Formats: sequence, C-alpha cells, structure tokens
Amino acid sequence: MTYCLGMLLKDGLVMISDSRTNAGLDHIAVFRKMTIWNEPGDRVIVIAAAGNLAITQEVIHFLHVGVTLPDEEEPKTIMSVTSMFEAAQLVGAAVRRSYRIDGERLEKENSGFNCSFLIGGQVGGDKARLFQVYSAGNFIESTADTCYFQIGEMKYGKPILDRALSYDTKLTQAGKLALISMDSTLRSNLSVGLPLDMAVYHRDSLELGMHRQFDEHDPYFAEISQRWSKSLKDAFLALPDPSW
Amino acid sequence: MTYCLGMLLKDGLVMISDSRTNAGLDHIAVFRKMTIWNEPGDRVIVIAAAGNLAITQEVIHFLHVGVTLPDEEEPKTIMSVTSMFEAAQLVGAAVRRSYRIDGERLEKENSGFNCSFLIGGQVGGDKARLFQVYSAGNFIESTADTCYFQIGEMKYGKPILDRALSYDTKLTQAGKLALISMDSTLRSNLSVGLPLDMAVYHRDSLELGMHRQFDEHDPYFAEISQRWSKSLKDAFLALPDPSW
Repeated sequence: MTYCLGMLLKDGLVMISDSRTNAGLDHIAVFRKMTIWNEPGDRVIVIAAAGNLAITQEVIHFLHVGVTLPDEEEPKTIMSVTSMFEAAQLVGAAVRRSYRIDGERLEKENSGFNCSFLIGGQVGGDKARLFQVYSAGNFIESTADTCYFQIGEMKYGKPILDRALSYDTKLTQAGKLALISMDSTLRSNLSVGLPLDMAVYHRDSLELGMHRQFDEHDPYFAEISQRWSKSLKDAFLALPDPSW
Repeated sequence: MTYCLGMLLKDGLVMISDSRTNAGLDHIAVFRKMTIWNEPGDRVIVIAAAGNLAITQEVIHFLHVGVTLPDEEEPKTIMSVTSMFEAAQLVGAAVRRSYRIDGERLEKENSGFNCSFLIGGQVGGDKARLFQVYSAGNFIESTADTCYFQIGEMKYGKPILDRALSYDTKLTQAGKLALISMDSTLRSNLSVGLPLDMAVYHRDSLELGMHRQFDEHDPYFAEISQRWSKSLKDAFLALPDPSW
C-alpha cells in the first residue's frame, strides 16, 4: 500500500507521498511515489502514484517517452502537453496502454489491475489544476468545495483533513496538515513508511516552490510528530469527563 | 458498514457501536448492533456485530435459542455457557451454522459471507475476557498489550486509540476515548451513524455498570464532539510552522 495526498488551494498546490512498497510482509522496499517535472516559466507537474508498482512505473515511463491521446495521431509526453487537462488525459491514456499490455494477465492471476494517480500543477497560460486518475483511465478534478484528493491507505489520515483543511488554508499550514495526516497513517498502518516526499507549488509562479524529503532523522517532522501526539493526549485529557 | 469497538482494560470493559445499516446509499436504516445479557451476580455478556445484517441477526437469534458446541451433544445458549471462552465458541458455532444455511447462496450472489463480532464480559467465577470472532467462526482474545478490538469501518477512529489508550486507562477515560474514536468515524464516513450504544462493565462486579444510548440530542456527546474538533484545530495551529 501507500498513501498520497494532494491539495489544490487558493494559494497553490501541496502534494505529499510516502515511499513504502510491499508485496506481502516479507518484501518491503523503498520507492518514491512522487515524480516532478519542473521547467521554470513553462510548467510544473507533480504526479503521485499508488497501486501495483510495476504498473505505476510503466505509466510514468510512458509519460516520459510519449503516449497518443484519444483522437490524436502524434504521441505526446508530459513535457509537450499544452494544459493540465491534457496532462491528466495523458496519464489516463498511459494507464489504458498499460492495461492493454498487462491487464489480462494480472486479472487472470487475481492481482487485479490496480493503480491510481494524483496529478497537479500548472502549464503555461492554463490555470493550476489537480486531478485524480483512476485505474480505468478516467479522472476527476478538485474544486474549492472538495480541495483535496487522497489515494492509497487514506482513512487514517482523513479525519484531521475533514476538520482543519479548507480552500483558504495557507500553503505552510497545509504542508503542516499534510505531515500530520501522514503521521497518523504511519502510526496506524505498517504498509506506509518513511521517507516522505513533499512538493509545494505557489499558484501562477510556474516554478516549483519547494521539494523536500522527510526521513526519520528530519528534526521538523520529528518535532511535529511528537508534539502532535502530546497535543492529542492533552486535548483528550482536557475534555470534560462523563457523569455516568 | 458499521463501526464497533471493544476495550478490555485493567478495570473492566468498554464497548461502543453505531447503529447505521446500509445496502447501497438508498437503503439506510437504524439497527442496534449491540446485544447485552445482564444477569446480576451470574453473568454480563455484551456482543457487538458488524457485517451482513441478515447474518448477524440470525447469529444473535441462535445465541438465544441454542447452538451445539463442537464435540458436545446438547445445545447451549448464551445464558447457559459456563465461561467467556465457551461464549466465544458459541458465537463461532452460531456463525458456522449460519454459514451452512446461507453461505453458498450468498457466495453465488457475490455478496460474500460477511460478519464479525466482538464479545466481552464475565461469567461466574471465570475472569473478564474480550474476543473477536471472525466470519469463519474462529476467534482471538485481547491481551494487556493489545487491549482493544475494532470491527467494521475501523481506520478513521484508530489513530487516537493508538496514541491515547493503554491497558491502565481508567474506564471513564476509555469511554471518552471511545466516543472520540466514534466521532472521527462519523465525520469521515457516511456508512456509520448515530445513535451510539455504549456499555461499561466494571471487572468482577458481575453486573452491567452502564448502558447508554447517544443520539444527536445528547448534550455530553455534542460537547465532546465540538470541543474535540476545536481542540484539534487549536493543537494544529499551535504546532511550529515549517521554515521552508
């Protein structure tokens, strides 16, 4: 499993992903789930992937070398698409190409064709957008009402987002929230693990604002994690006791 | 879906369950998931059930009218078992009887034979125990290290338990934690709903300590829910901002 989170807010985009891949409990490895294309002045595109690693790596490969979009003749790459909508279409087309190659065998082995992607960023004069692409290659876009998407092991980290995140949340606060949401998941689920990748993009800057990896030695993540745990316990103890 | 939680702690047992049943999104109804047998001086047994409602109701019916345990000849009921272990065996035997009746048809319709149970309490001179019974009729018992079990929609409410609950937690605090864990689940998942049933049993008392239903008008639950939400936001805001 894995956990990835993308938020498109008034001020821009925050994306975070873990890096644990497991096939059963014996075969655990570290693979980054986040891929970033940063061409200042032209485009910033961040993709986070969950699901079968062989599929998601194949899809990312197709995005680099080119896939043909529906109703087009020439293949495009993530560097030649002209809008974020086309970038999401390209991920969908890459997923469908991967399905044509591997889908049947995977389904016969009962593994299923399992993958999902978050793709956020901004291309040229187009506005910043965030999409979630499903394993069928179709996709949905975030809005001001529903300003975040999660893929993978999403439930542990959802309650804090439902309470504290809104479209107007500042990017530094959103980054902090992303770390807390990830920390809750790390604590409760073995299949999600450090290091984390975080990317921040300021709307209309057309340049990656921040990309940082958090491992177990990162002092800020360690502080957030410890203080959040203590805050939760303190907040719990401060609640009124029942009268029963 | 549903969410049920059982904790067996140093001082006794706390169990909580929601009451939403849904078949798709159109067919939503209120069914209590908790059944209590309280015979002061003799036994207190609390069962919470998740899964297919037709199965779980059938299992509870069998516990009332009697099921034959493995290697025995006469049927027993939940009121005639002589220990909590035997009570858990009885739930397992009832589940297997239900499977013999309904299992094949359910699997043919791809519904699957889906049910799980928490059973906690104390019988006569036996010690207080808590078990989780699976849909195969087998079961596991809680320990001081792993002092709580969850069934159903469990992930949203797990992080707070992993941080704040231990075997030494007092029963009133554990009850408060159970409400918070449930509140996190209610907020993030439509398939879990009010009213809640909570039962508290003080170890070796052989008498139900408390049974209370919390609906949307319950002032204590409303206060816990609002203050917890505010505490989380405040705690989040009080965390140090990142320097990036």
